[in-house]
Amino acid sequence: MKKILLEENEIPKHWYNILPDLPSPLEPPLDPQTNQPMNPEKLKALFPEALIEQEMSQERWIPIPQEVLEVYSIWRPTPLIRATKLEEYLDTPAKIYYKYEGIAPPGSHKPNTAVPQAYYNAKEGIKKLTTETGAGQWGSSLAFAGQYFGIQVKVYMVKVSFQQKPYRRVLMETWGAKVIPSPSPYTKSGRKILQEDPDNPGSLGIAISEAVEEALENPDTHYSLGSVLNHVLLHQTVIGLEAKKQLAKVKHYPDIIIGSVGGGSNFGGLALPFMIERLSGDSCTRFIAVEPYSCPTLTKGEYRYDFGDTVGFTPLMKMHTLGHDFIPPSIHAGGLRYHGMAPIISKLYDEGLIEAVAVKQTEIFKAAVEFARTEGIVPAPESAHAVKVAIDEALKCRETGEPKVILFNLSGHGLLDMMAYQKYFEGELID
Amino acid sequence: MKKILLEENEIPKHWYNILPDLPSPLEPPLDPQTNQPMNPEKLKALFPEALIEQEMSQERWIPIPQEVLEVYSIWRPTPLIRATKLEEYLDTPAKIYYKYEGIAPPGSHKPNTAVPQAYYNAKEGIKKLTTETGAGQWGSSLAFAGQYFGIQVKVYMVKVSFQQKPYRRVLMETWGAKVIPSPSPYTKSGRKILQEDPDNPGSLGIAISEAVEEALENPDTHYSLGSVLNHVLLHQTVIGLEAKKQLAKVKHYPDIIIGSVGGGSNFGGLALPFMIERLSGDSCTRFIAVEPYSCPTLTKGEYRYDFGDTVGFTPLMKMHTLGHDFIPPSIHAGGLRYHGMAPIISKLYDEGLIEAVAVKQTEIFKAAVEFARTEGIVPAPESAHAVKVAIDEALKCRETGEPKVILFNLSGHGLLDMMAYQKYFEGELID
Repeated sequence: MKKILLEENEIPKHWYNILPDLPSPLEPPLDPQTNQPMNPEKLKALFPEALIEQEMSQERWIPIPQEVLEVYSIWRPTPLIRATKLEEYLDTPAKIYYKYEGIAPPGSHKPNTAVPQAYYNAKEGIKKLTTETGAGQWGSSLAFAGQYFGIQVKVYMVKVSFQQKPYRRVLMETWGAKVIPSPSPYTKSGRKILQEDPDNPGSLGIAISEAVEEALENPDTHYSLGSVLNHVLLHQTVIGLEAKKQLAKVKHYPDIIIGSVGGGSNFGGLALPFMIERLSGDSCTRFIAVEPYSCPTLTKGEYRYDFGDTVGFTPLMKMHTLGHDFIPPSIHAGGLRYHGMAPIISKLYDEGLIEAVAVKQTEIFKAAVEFARTEGIVPAPESAHAVKVAIDEALKCRETGEPKVILFNLSGHGLLDMMAYQKYFEGELID
Repeated sequence: MKKILLEENEIPKHWYNILPDLPSPLEPPLDPQTNQPMNPEKLKALFPEALIEQEMSQERWIPIPQEVLEVYSIWRPTPLIRATKLEEYLDTPAKIYYKYEGIAPPGSHKPNTAVPQAYYNAKEGIKKLTTETGAGQWGSSLAFAGQYFGIQVKVYMVKVSFQQKPYRRVLMETWGAKVIPSPSPYTKSGRKILQEDPDNPGSLGIAISEAVEEALENPDTHYSLGSVLNHVLLHQTVIGLEAKKQLAKVKHYPDIIIGSVGGGSNFGGLALPFMIERLSGDSCTRFIAVEPYSCPTLTKGEYRYDFGDTVGFTPLMKMHTLGHDFIPPSIHAGGLRYHGMAPIISKLYDEGLIEAVAVKQTEIFKAAVEFARTEGIVPAPESAHAVKVAIDEALKCRETGEPKVILFNLSGHGLLDMMAYQKYFEGELID
């Protein structure tokens, strides 16, 4: 069997919350004005209460609302696919599996959290959500989700991606969203940055500042973040929970779990449910987070309190960071251009439970083309980071002869990233 | 249940060949040089023997080779989806189902025939396949298929699509194919047309002439056609055979079956397996073929012998045709810009077993956006023709109160067609 499928009624009914299981508690977010632990009340200007509760919950299993399951069922459960043709091509004894999240209409794992975020906001009477997007995967996912709950979505899109990926903008508009290139002249944050540098290519940090500013200034508007926060990783655990059920059907358990990391949500979504056995000592699975060489948050960043955005509107979070004023180069894996890292992933990395690798973009496109020419699916540049390291690990197995079970997250397809492939073929990509 | 899934081992093991069941036999193809029935021997310059046999076979069930099933399993079985959210939006008692073929890596139903065509050619020692493509869906599917059987693929792409859809070209190149805009200076056919009109936007007919010419002149090269021919419709019946199994699971049988038609293969693929009951008198299902208003082959064409290509290399086929020198306007549903129609579909239409409707492109984009905003999937412009008529029929059910079962083929997604959506939003599309 190439694909291991689940029935619609096998979609998990709960998300897995790792907070109570962490080896040591997460450090609290700090109020940027007082440097004291954040008063949850103050977060209500940005987030609905249900999400603020989830952000700090000590409940291990959190029920997925029926309304969310119903929208999930448009594309979930996603297939777990055995990479038989890639294994053959690599001549490896490794068993490579990938969880394919690109099957969602927006083409990535992002709607797993966009849908519940739109749902909880609508339930508390919010009419409009602002957000930022890099490559457009998050923005299109929130646009997609918003329409099911009557939420108007406004997306600040990192300018370099807005220019490189016009198709994504139209996709967001098709789902009814409004899209603004960031930095924009419509917010104080945007205007300040444009004054200093009119050609600023933008970054996720700047776009977050703009989206947060608009939400803070409008009472019927909330803000929605597509990665980094605890509740985002929580919602993404539906990936790993499904993958666990699927692997159990073929009586396999992963020796190595691999995911790309920008803010940490697709990696966390796949990895955290498997961390249960690792934390309890029942497995010695290796967890590998793969980041871009040009934005090496885990491998080169410091583990300290920092802002989530560029201007300094968000609470300070204890995380691995390259500094909130870091502007990553305009690499094509736009979704991974973020200065920080999810506090949960940062903590697990700090505790030695996660390894990190930084890879160059020419290497990841080489791996992506090998994958497309064997498995058939064209990976998103972000997901290709995971493909690259899965191939590396499978080749190590060829050396050692070990039939390891490798599981990675193919978090999205690259059909809207063909321009980046073109540049790769034309030798125009630099590392 | 929103999605009705099948297990991998439920992929049909045979294709359904309608030839022995037609109310009267198909008229034979004629040799363009003699106007006499074509000698199958002469087709061997273009096609492998296995496909020539399938083209004329009187066997009702033709086994799908194991090697083809293995590649099918990359994405098949495809889901049958109940359009619950569209039904709700339309407030209709109709039960709308769609078979979603966009889940294939190239994003459409086309690999259903590309894979067996590449397989049979490789089995007979062919190293290279030439073909034409309109929107790029067929070319990318053959590129995808070729790589599994060591076949080099060269694609003549209709120039207007080559320009409008650069992403598709890169996709074909990612899968290792070579892509040439047609009309091109590399063939006699292309040079002749360019001399008469250097700005000729191209058409499927011209691109076929170029691809056929190259195959005729090179003994190790065959030609591959993505629609129209009997063996192509045969391979596509995997769609309808799966849909039948899926509907049986929910104890439904379609009252109306809808598909878009260019050459006729996606419509035929869904419809023909359901034609069995209609031909035997066991059902009175309506079959509706939807074509573009600007290329109205069934509704306005004549039923007579005509060439499959523009220059006149192919055998003459009895079919509905707008004339082999018809150049359709550059509408965005590039895959439907063809002057002729599959002989099987033409015959069934002539016999009154199929209805046809021609729809305008602004109408189909309106329907496509309604679909995207309810069901979540952004349809290819080609597939949106079927969406439009499915909506129309569902609205009729709202008038009459009849809970009809409507089945249509969502033959592909539109993620590589966002430029067309952009033009629609900007009011630039004309009918």
